[in-house]
Amino acid sequence: MTTTTTDDPRQVTVLGLGDMGSAIARTLVDRGYRTTVWNRTASKSEPLVAAGATAAATAAEAVAASPLVVICLLDSTAVDEVLGAVETAVAGKVLVNVTSGSPAQARENERWATERGAEYIDGKIMGDPPYVGTPNIMFPFSGSRSAFQAHEPVLQELGTIAYHGEDAGLAAVEFMGQVAMGYEMLIGFLHTLKLVQAEGVDVVAFTERVAGSVAAYPPLLTMMGKAIKSGEYAPDLGPLNVQAALMDDMIDHRESIGVEAVRMREVKELMDRRIAEGHGDQGFSSLFELLPKRR
Amino acid sequence: MTTTTTDDPRQVTVLGLGDMGSAIARTLVDRGYRTTVWNRTASKSEPLVAAGATAAATAAEAVAASPLVVICLLDSTAVDEVLGAVETAVAGKVLVNVTSGSPAQARENERWATERGAEYIDGKIMGDPPYVGTPNIMFPFSGSRSAFQAHEPVLQELGTIAYHGEDAGLAAVEFMGQVAMGYEMLIGFLHTLKLVQAEGVDVVAFTERVAGSVAAYPPLLTMMGKAIKSGEYAPDLGPLNVQAALMDDMIDHRESIGVEAVRMREVKELMDRRIAEGHGDQGFSSLFELLPKRR
Ligand SMILES: NC(=O)c1ccc[n+]([C@@H]2O[C@H](COP(=O)([O-])OP(=O)(O)OC[C@H]3O[C@@H](n4cnc5c(N)ncnc54)[C@H](OP(=O)(O)O)[C@@H]3O)[C@@H](O)[C@H]2O)c1
Ligand SMILES: NC(=O)c1ccc[n+]([C@@H]2O[C@H](COP(=O)([O-])OP(=O)(O)OC[C@H]3O[C@@H](n4cnc5c(N)ncnc54)[C@H](OP(=O)(O)O)[C@@H]3O)[C@@H](O)[C@H]2O)c1
Repeated sequence: MTTTTTDDPRQVTVLGLGDMGSAIARTLVDRGYRTTVWNRTASKSEPLVAAGATAAATAAEAVAASPLVVICLLDSTAVDEVLGAVETAVAGKVLVNVTSGSPAQARENERWATERGAEYIDGKIMGDPPYVGTPNIMFPFSGSRSAFQAHEPVLQELGTIAYHGEDAGLAAVEFMGQVAMGYEMLIGFLHTLKLVQAEGVDVVAFTERVAGSVAAYPPLLTMMGKAIKSGEYAPDLGPLNVQAALMDDMIDHRESIGVEAVRMREVKELMDRRIAEGHGDQGFSSLFELLPKRR
Repeated sequence: MTTTTTDDPRQVTVLGLGDMGSAIARTLVDRGYRTTVWNRTASKSEPLVAAGATAAATAAEAVAASPLVVICLLDSTAVDEVLGAVETAVAGKVLVNVTSGSPAQARENERWATERGAEYIDGKIMGDPPYVGTPNIMFPFSGSRSAFQAHEPVLQELGTIAYHGEDAGLAAVEFMGQVAMGYEMLIGFLHTLKLVQAEGVDVVAFTERVAGSVAAYPPLLTMMGKAIKSGEYAPDLGPLNVQAALMDDMIDHRESIGVEAVRMREVKELMDRRIAEGHGDQGFSSLFELLPKRR
């Protein structure tokens, strides 16, 4: 540990007071932390000052005020800009950057911080601002284990937290994976609603039924994850020989009503290849074997 | 109703004894129905005959044996072939075709059956053979309402059933929509596992966490379905302005590790267009407005 341990552990700075940064700062103020805030557009600090926070005139002053600095900006371009402005103030600090971004950016931020005598924790946020301070928002963290352990109590104020490892990129890997999974499902859902709507089905009634089906997916995903790890593929969702017979009908149907079929074509092609390789008795999860390998 | 009402309602024929047809026939035998079976490859009837079914020598003889004929073959090509062979035997019968296929095929089958004096019910199967006869397998039905009502008790033996309307295509619409939703999620899941695996994350541990997140999706889907029906788009998952800022990072990250990004590029493009149209304060569900309209 560095000089940070000699500072007051209940003293925190928050850089960035958008919807999310404000929710974080407000939670810390409400839980009794001496909270210093800074935002590019200064007026956004007013409600927080009214609630008990101290506004700093510059980002560098804000960093100087606390051992722990939470950074919550729009994106990594904003982070780069703000870090550039606080470069001489970060030595001895713990930086916790919860701005959305990639694993590579997290690793680069860690390198930058370490070179300047700071410790770096990367964090990502899965949930909406109103849930900050409740267990219903998730914060994966990664990076300096000692800094994480030293500041775990304050991070726990924010929501359900998890430490993913010393590689600073791991919180972003978790975030990218979880967000992608959500977007894959949801964009597929929107296209599917177009399909049922084009056929005259009520989208709300269909959604209720789909929501019921989705509730049954967690155990299926768990089973598939295990199959992929072991390489032993049971005929989940039925054998590929049976599943594949349906794909042309699905693609034709979508085309006949003007709904895109990019994933259905991909699934069909993967099924055909897997069957041609002699694995028609295996299930959907076995398609994993055909996805491109790491370059 | 036709002559079928004068026949024994506990007399059923099953055409097709693959995994699914056999499970259906077996359930009916076990529940005390006088069950006649037929399969192209005759040997598959043996276990059913041992359990109490009667094997017919031809499909036409099997159809003649019962007022209700359940058809469960590989695909619609097989259905066309078998229907062609029983053409002169179907008058006065109720045909329940639970073979996977498209809405257009269902409507065509209904036309064919009606022209020959038969009633037609289309059904689809959502679940695996071992679940036949339990509530954990779903059978959407559509087509002749009177035939459905007359034969509801026997259909109820098979699983959880639902009647979607007189349009014979509606069971297939439900099936195509639900299956597509599943494949969209699952192919996205496989790509996401490639991503986390490439970053050194254990796929089983990640799957457990994703399964936890997926469990939270049903209420989100319900909210989105309502937003789409009403056209009032709250900032679900955060405002598009904030969500879009992340997409380039996601796409770059996937490309850097060799994971495809087709849906992420599509989502990004839709978000950018929606923001350019002045709707950056709305949520993900508003992207529905940009999907192609029915041709
Ligand atoms: N909102 C959500 O639902 C949600 C959910 C999960 C994760 N997140 C993540 O949380 C982070 C913050 O989101 P938010 O909802 O708070 O976004 P926001 O309301 O749009 O706020 C963006 C913040 O970034 C600042 N900023 C942008 N560019 C800057 C620059 N070049 N220099 C300095 N400051 C700059 C803004 O300052 P000004 O006020 O001066 O513009 C503002 O404080 C994002 O990475 C987002 O992906 C948000
Ligand atoms: N298995 C599942 O998990 C599952 C789940 C949901 C829905 N389904 C649907 O249920 C239906 C049946 O699936 P299954 O699992 O029973 O498939 P299967 O085990 O592969 O059996 C296919 C059946 O179709 C027959 N068949 C194929 N082509 C034929 C033709 N040209 N003429 C006459 N008969 C023909 C086969 O006869 P032979 O024995 O002579 O080859 C066999 O009885 C499919 O539409 C499938 O999509 C299955």
